[in-house]
Amino acid sequence: MDTRFSSAIHTLILISEAKTPMTSEQIAVSVGTNASYIRKLTALLKNGKIIKSRQGVSGFSLVIAPQDLTLYDVYRAIYETNELHIFDIHANPNDECIVGKHITPVLTSAFGAAENAVLQSLKTQTLASVMDNMRNEIKKEQ
Amino acid sequence: MDTRFSSAIHTLILISEAKTPMTSEQIAVSVGTNASYIRKLTALLKNGKIIKSRQGVSGFSLVIAPQDLTLYDVYRAIYETNELHIFDIHANPNDECIVGKHITPVLTSAFGAAENAVLQSLKTQTLASVMDNMRNEIKKEQ
Repeated sequence: MDTRFSSAIHTLILISEAKTPMTSEQIAVSVGTNASYIRKLTALLKNGKIIKSRQGVSGFSLVIAPQDLTLYDVYRAIYETNELHIFDIHANPNDECIVGKHITPVLTSAFGAAENAVLQSLKTQTLASVMDNMRNEIKKEQ
Repeated sequence: MDTRFSSAIHTLILISEAKTPMTSEQIAVSVGTNASYIRKLTALLKNGKIIKSRQGVSGFSLVIAPQDLTLYDVYRAIYETNELHIFDIHANPNDECIVGKHITPVLTSAFGAAENAVLQSLKTQTLASVMDNMRNEIKKEQ
């Protein structure tokens, strides 16, 4: 289980929405983890220029407005990469067979298109759209 | 490394293109694996109604024409599922926080859209399109 991405989005919603700035400890209680894990995530989000420390006070604020902050931006900050790997390619196709000789670039391109589709989808979703969906969830319950 | 999907596509190209039907042993040599691994893949492809045994002779033939056989069909046969999981969601968000209480369905939907984009991409790619790309690779070399 790698829940850094989902925990980071949860953290960003709290940073965006909380009326008074939250400490790592308070964020950790909401995410269901410990404060040191949250501090690792906020360090990555700071590095990625998504959040900043508030001068002279505790807590963080967003650098990018929620409607401009895509899930792709969050993904890139947390994993420190522009890429996403889903499908492995067999490592030892036989070069003496014409199919074996040419399979790797062909599958790299086919799988790359699928992997890129994920990143494109993350680019179309913003922190604001996620928070809108959350508001709808909350309304449904009321 | 899980290379069942890439090995299955390699196998299907061989089944589609070989002038004389290939045995599991011959396919294994091209893929760079062993015959028993190939037999597991061909069993899944048979179950998925993508290939069939040739009556009275060794080897397999395609049930679906290459231009109608999508990479999604292959994925589904090999993994025996319609779904693809990429992003984990943290398991213990705090129900007493309004964000913690509603984060799971919201992230399930956001991540689901991204995961679905992969499957849509696999649906737009066919064995024929992969083989066309391979022919272009071969031409480039000549």
